[in-house]
Amino acid sequence: MSQTAHDFHITTLGPCGIPSPQKMSSVDGDFIANWVTDDERVLVHIHSCPGVPMGVTNSFEKAGPRARIFFSPADVHAAIVTCGGLCPGLNDVIRAIVFNLEYRYGVRRISGIRFGYRGLIDGIMDEPIPLNAALVNDIHNRGGTILGSSRGNGDRAGEIVDTLERRGIHILFTLGGDGTQRGAMGIAEEIARRNLPIAVVGVPKTIDNDIAFADRSFGFESAVASAVTAISAAHVEALGAPSGIGLVKVMGRHSGFIAAHATLAMNDVDFVLIPEVPFELDGPNGFLAHLEMRVKKRGHAVVLVAEGAGQHLVAGGGHTDASGNAVLGDVGLFLKDCIPAWFAQQGAEVNLKYIDPSYIIRATPANANDSLLCARLGGAAVHAAMCGRTKMLVNILHNQFVHIPIEVAVSRRNQVNPDGDLWRDVVEATGQPPLMRNDRPSLLSYNL
Amino acid sequence: MSQTAHDFHITTLGPCGIPSPQKMSSVDGDFIANWVTDDERVLVHIHSCPGVPMGVTNSFEKAGPRARIFFSPADVHAAIVTCGGLCPGLNDVIRAIVFNLEYRYGVRRISGIRFGYRGLIDGIMDEPIPLNAALVNDIHNRGGTILGSSRGNGDRAGEIVDTLERRGIHILFTLGGDGTQRGAMGIAEEIARRNLPIAVVGVPKTIDNDIAFADRSFGFESAVASAVTAISAAHVEALGAPSGIGLVKVMGRHSGFIAAHATLAMNDVDFVLIPEVPFELDGPNGFLAHLEMRVKKRGHAVVLVAEGAGQHLVAGGGHTDASGNAVLGDVGLFLKDCIPAWFAQQGAEVNLKYIDPSYIIRATPANANDSLLCARLGGAAVHAAMCGRTKMLVNILHNQFVHIPIEVAVSRRNQVNPDGDLWRDVVEATGQPPLMRNDRPSLLSYNL
Amino acid sequence: MSQTAHDFHITTLGPCGIPSPQKMSSVDGDFIANWVTDDERVLVHIHSCPGVPMGVTNSFEKAGPRARIFFSPADVHAAIVTCGGLCPGLNDVIRAIVFNLEYRYGVRRISGIRFGYRGLIDGIMDEPIPLNAALVNDIHNRGGTILGSSRGNGDRAGEIVDTLERRGIHILFTLGGDGTQRGAMGIAEEIARRNLPIAVVGVPKTIDNDIAFADRSFGFESAVASAVTAISAAHVEALGAPSGIGLVKVMGRHSGFIAAHATLAMNDVDFVLIPEVPFELDGPNGFLAHLEMRVKKRGHAVVLVAEGAGQHLVAGGGHTDASGNAVLGDVGLFLKDCIPAWFAQQGAEVNLKYIDPSYIIRATPANANDSLLCARLGGAAVHAAMCGRTKMLVNILHNQFVHIPIEVAVSRRNQVNPDGDLWRDVVEATGQPPLMRNDRPSLLSYNL
Amino acid sequence: MSQTAHDFHITTLGPCGIPSPQKMSSVDGDFIANWVTDDERVLVHIHSCPGVPMGVTNSFEKAGPRARIFFSPADVHAAIVTCGGLCPGLNDVIRAIVFNLEYRYGVRRISGIRFGYRGLIDGIMDEPIPLNAALVNDIHNRGGTILGSSRGNGDRAGEIVDTLERRGIHILFTLGGDGTQRGAMGIAEEIARRNLPIAVVGVPKTIDNDIAFADRSFGFESAVASAVTAISAAHVEALGAPSGIGLVKVMGRHSGFIAAHATLAMNDVDFVLIPEVPFELDGPNGFLAHLEMRVKKRGHAVVLVAEGAGQHLVAGGGHTDASGNAVLGDVGLFLKDCIPAWFAQQGAEVNLKYIDPSYIIRATPANANDSLLCARLGGAAVHAAMCGRTKMLVNILHNQFVHIPIEVAVSRRNQVNPDGDLWRDVVEATGQPPLMRNDRPSLLSYNL
Repeated sequence: MSQTAHDFHITTLGPCGIPSPQKMSSVDGDFIANWVTDDERVLVHIHSCPGVPMGVTNSFEKAGPRARIFFSPADVHAAIVTCGGLCPGLNDVIRAIVFNLEYRYGVRRISGIRFGYRGLIDGIMDEPIPLNAALVNDIHNRGGTILGSSRGNGDRAGEIVDTLERRGIHILFTLGGDGTQRGAMGIAEEIARRNLPIAVVGVPKTIDNDIAFADRSFGFESAVASAVTAISAAHVEALGAPSGIGLVKVMGRHSGFIAAHATLAMNDVDFVLIPEVPFELDGPNGFLAHLEMRVKKRGHAVVLVAEGAGQHLVAGGGHTDASGNAVLGDVGLFLKDCIPAWFAQQGAEVNLKYIDPSYIIRATPANANDSLLCARLGGAAVHAAMCGRTKMLVNILHNQFVHIPIEVAVSRRNQVNPDGDLWRDVVEATGQPPLMRNDRPSLLSYNL
Repeated sequence: MSQTAHDFHITTLGPCGIPSPQKMSSVDGDFIANWVTDDERVLVHIHSCPGVPMGVTNSFEKAGPRARIFFSPADVHAAIVTCGGLCPGLNDVIRAIVFNLEYRYGVRRISGIRFGYRGLIDGIMDEPIPLNAALVNDIHNRGGTILGSSRGNGDRAGEIVDTLERRGIHILFTLGGDGTQRGAMGIAEEIARRNLPIAVVGVPKTIDNDIAFADRSFGFESAVASAVTAISAAHVEALGAPSGIGLVKVMGRHSGFIAAHATLAMNDVDFVLIPEVPFELDGPNGFLAHLEMRVKKRGHAVVLVAEGAGQHLVAGGGHTDASGNAVLGDVGLFLKDCIPAWFAQQGAEVNLKYIDPSYIIRATPANANDSLLCARLGGAAVHAAMCGRTKMLVNILHNQFVHIPIEVAVSRRNQVNPDGDLWRDVVEATGQPPLMRNDRPSLLSYNL
Repeated sequence: MSQTAHDFHITTLGPCGIPSPQKMSSVDGDFIANWVTDDERVLVHIHSCPGVPMGVTNSFEKAGPRARIFFSPADVHAAIVTCGGLCPGLNDVIRAIVFNLEYRYGVRRISGIRFGYRGLIDGIMDEPIPLNAALVNDIHNRGGTILGSSRGNGDRAGEIVDTLERRGIHILFTLGGDGTQRGAMGIAEEIARRNLPIAVVGVPKTIDNDIAFADRSFGFESAVASAVTAISAAHVEALGAPSGIGLVKVMGRHSGFIAAHATLAMNDVDFVLIPEVPFELDGPNGFLAHLEMRVKKRGHAVVLVAEGAGQHLVAGGGHTDASGNAVLGDVGLFLKDCIPAWFAQQGAEVNLKYIDPSYIIRATPANANDSLLCARLGGAAVHAAMCGRTKMLVNILHNQFVHIPIEVAVSRRNQVNPDGDLWRDVVEATGQPPLMRNDRPSLLSYNL
Repeated sequence: MSQTAHDFHITTLGPCGIPSPQKMSSVDGDFIANWVTDDERVLVHIHSCPGVPMGVTNSFEKAGPRARIFFSPADVHAAIVTCGGLCPGLNDVIRAIVFNLEYRYGVRRISGIRFGYRGLIDGIMDEPIPLNAALVNDIHNRGGTILGSSRGNGDRAGEIVDTLERRGIHILFTLGGDGTQRGAMGIAEEIARRNLPIAVVGVPKTIDNDIAFADRSFGFESAVASAVTAISAAHVEALGAPSGIGLVKVMGRHSGFIAAHATLAMNDVDFVLIPEVPFELDGPNGFLAHLEMRVKKRGHAVVLVAEGAGQHLVAGGGHTDASGNAVLGDVGLFLKDCIPAWFAQQGAEVNLKYIDPSYIIRATPANANDSLLCARLGGAAVHAAMCGRTKMLVNILHNQFVHIPIEVAVSRRNQVNPDGDLWRDVVEATGQPPLMRNDRPSLLSYNL
């Protein structure tokens, strides 16, 4: 079993040689606390399914400080880059990385790369910001990233490694989503090709919470809390008018986690539409008929739609942005128009209020629990880099911090499982029919 | 291996016979979503330790709706009781239980027991409140419990079961901590002795997060966020005066989880004192010497103390309260006096501001993420009870909702492991010496 | 002078005859506290302008309980109606009216009219909700109005007074804006025509803070605080991208008070556009040229636009809604398109993020200070109605609660004075040119 | 009348000679906006009382920028000092002063004095912090003062003026309470004695809102909002236990404004005890008898006590602190002990929970409305100083910003008027007896 248990190989620059700074040791030297040994691992699969033999076939390396490190703290030059859309907690991660580098290891050269990968490309880059603990002391109270961000340029690994070499950077922390980490993988491969002692360690960022092999992504909880504020407003508006409908669009390009979690956190939503569960608009078992029924029965309704839901219905889209993400049609504006049209057609009254909180959700500062997650992810990333790990991400899995090879991390993306517990609980909380499709008419009697 | 995998046996009243209400099925009957089968389980241990063969020896039953249920929804009479100290999210759990009973199963008789177990004892009880979905619709916006709570009386199982019989109660949901769940175990045993078809299902509550076999307890995150507000105030006060010290006491009788998490969430704390890590006050490597050094070096300091820390130093305590919990001496007031005395003795200036947020922390409403946890725990408890499970708790483990036999749940209590990752990260975040004991003098050079 | 001091005559149903319930008196009768006598008044104009003789020509009657009242508490039937758009604090005012009627005067018949004036019109009305203190105890924690609201129907005074007569309603509290209070005036006049003993007392509501003769309107502060959250997000987004622009639209149909106050509350806004200060888009001293200059100089910019600003530029509008309010073109979407177009035309980079917080701002619960204002306004309204005042509003002027005749209150509407202190401070805070018009080119050197 | 209208003479260093920087003018020079002329004034008394001739006998000079200024911006050296206890908004005022000095006038030399007046006294002072707009850009998000504060030393005017001379400081902004401003008056008088061109301009700070001639003091609203959180917790705890009492102590040494406003903002308080309204503990009409009655009738009670209330009952106190303020006995701890003792004596059950939020209330950041007030006060202070005003405070009166001579401002202190509107509304909101004294037994029937 042990061979399968080590499926996920972590890339390391070389054997660790330098003793770790002994901040945690006591005077007589016999109290060296809490080093992680390299064979401590965390299992990936924890389910015991019927018919499947109870066992585990793989695991990830545990994160944390090692007794011996690869880079010499006095000489190392670390850099941090933030890419892609904003997410609560980016500044917390930056702060944690700087604090750990400076306070834990005594690293003094830290560069903050401006505006994503373009800040590492000669000719278009802005000058990096020299970072230190005093400078980042209060940044966790602010949303966004003090470094700025941008999309794209992750495919220009050659130019980026040129810059890393020219600037004498030994460690690159990449804070970003799928595209960013794919870029990081390319950079690490180019580094390997040139045989350079440069570590690339990622901290995965996705406000949509669609990272595989992770309990949750940083910023997600804060985003959900912020979405709840918007949905509460929609609920208030729906209650405040005769036949009132509150319609809210939230983030979620390929996954409906924000919508699902916000729904369960407040239980005032009547219909949740997410990318993972297709629905029809018209017909006796379509969304609009159910919505009309609900408004007639209860006088109001709250509809929550993830931006990636119902894309087959929406005009627009088809092209991609600088990060390579598909540009979506606006399902919020689409529903804002077609719901009143349906009600008008049925001769029914309706008062629809549409709320698109957009960037308010992602530009919020991290809440306490996300701050904690960011602090520990940042610390884990520093420990990993200092002992020479590379081409990997840090993450939290089953409440343990782990090292995940980038190629494994980006190999899949989480989605809400329409047959899973989360969606089941959402459907029960909303009372919406599990399927709004006319080939599957619902018996739902709406006794809510 | 499979025999060890089923170490933890869940008690069930009898075989389930009644088909579950088919809220989630479609008309043609072929879409029965998301029933949990009785052999779906979740592993308990997920670590792969060096030298230990990679395998798992035990698991818990997965929570969720079953295809067939034990109680007839039309006839069942459920009751909810909340015991012990307040905790953010109690009202959310009550609301979720009522919503699920009424909306999911169509249960119409739900009683809210007043003021804990005493509300189930003839002669001292207040009349229960009849609960329904309309009544509890907005209670999640309020802290505390609409039912009221109290300590004690958990050992009067005979009288309580008398009341359950007399009132025709079939399901009792017990929301409370260790003592409460021990009481629930006694009640379930008395029920078994009388051979009654009454289910007892617990939802464990502890603001200290010291529940075993759980990722986290509901309300804990909200309490941490509230503690962060108090600690921020202490930080502001410490910075606002020459040689300023901010001293904050937070909850944590036997475990320092609130203190540890709050510290990592903000990283402005310089010393954390918790029950799990003993410390000395005096001497060259005692807490006071380190505190003095820190104030001299940096001009201020923030000290966070869990109420159960340093009990060997504090007068008072020794007796127990109505729940059987030991009454603690007040370490906050103790330090408030002895810190200035130490500085005065050294002829050093100090301006200490003491903050005891006390009930503010636990009386706060649940934040969004705790609300979600409560909603799902409440739902899981209803599903468990309706299919006849008894003498068990629901909980979240490795992000899965599970059934835990009460005797297993109360067999141990979590604490911060002084040799574990969490405390290591706390020590690194604060820069405090890992041990403040004079038999282990620290080399700490305070270059922070 | 005294004759001019009483310019503003309050309409009263008749001489007060019934002694006020003596909640505030002591046993021996010699301590009758705090009755307001009918000749206590509050001055309107408090400025002493150069050249103008220092004196005052008018005043309002002071609000508060009177020693003798007009209506018999045991018999009176009061009704509350909420009209127009939502506003933070509506539920607080409802709660305060009910609390004061029930606790202070012992009134037991209180009806909550559903969905605005249409709830008073036979044939289209929903049945009113019987209100009492227990029912409204927690509603101040929720945004919106528990009664529901709607626009229009204020001109159907005849039908409304029919309903008041038929239902035996003696007091009507009207919570709403200009249109609502004009409707209330018509209702009061119809009542006078029929010579009925029915009092109509208004509590003016306007989220735009454009009420004349008032320090501020309830809910305004909460709306500003909510707008600040959205603008902070825009600031974070602007900083987070190269050449980033954050554009936020806030409420303010005819007045820019929300925009002006939010700007001064945070000082991160660079351009504020309000209805009171016309601007040009193009040309060397137009808004777009200044915006481009600012982005080039500082790398980012935040633009805040009130919905009523720049209406001469925007297509759409021209017609009116059910309240008689002009429908505006969407200046936010307009700027969202034309700003990037301008930058593209100049060959300049820009990353614009647009935020329209819309209903989030007005559906928020009242903050503590607004709750206090609502509580006192509601109390003042009850005192006024119980002593027979009618065709009047309550309001706060110079920190005093006063009675204002409706016809005086609706005779004018406040706006931001482009030559006043508030706008001066806004212009200084933003650094924007005071005039963005090409007939008045600016010398502004942008040394910010 | 006009001579009395100018009772309050503002001290000015000399005639203004230097044209104000024309940030607000347009190119052709004909648009000079919004200068305040020196004879614009704001009336003080706005009441029209019965029998008193309608007129006004005094007024304050209006604040704002003048067309000509006294100090040359290029040369001036300004300093800011914060004294006494912390208060929400101090950092906002500092930020506003720095922003206005730098952006509006182009002043480049600004010193932040450390830790109050002691930062201006040779031998004990820490070196001042050089301030500029970039440095203070984000400080408004933090509570407290970045300069630090301390009590006392206001009487050492000679030494302080020595320092001002030696350091070449031309403007001193004093942020603090009564004692601080008395100190500022002494400093200004010493400056006058030495005939120096140094302006002293105060921004009055008092969390207790007891400033005379002001609508409200900055930070007060934020403190009230923070107090409401604590009182809500007490309410939750009171409801959560049989015969529950929540007891909260809030700030208010000589005035009960925080207690009164917090009570009206939430209306969940049953008894408010403030310094201005004496009460007796024992006897049939004492506080304890009323409290017992209330708990028996309604099952719970919330008691709010201002720290200065009931001082005749409390041991301790008598001496004064470094600011010359009397040290109070702790009425909170006193009631925490004597309430349960009373109930025990009566054989009645009680569960008292005591909350002392202490510094949490004053160390909170300013809310949006306080931030706005601070921004405008800071701006007004800069305008006043730049045109040579001295020995004065800025403040807001009747929604106008005014100049107040220090000797007038410190001549009196506001208190809650037991016969006024505010206390009347508080008594009505709580339902408590207006007098709890046995020489005035109450008829109160407690039908609440």
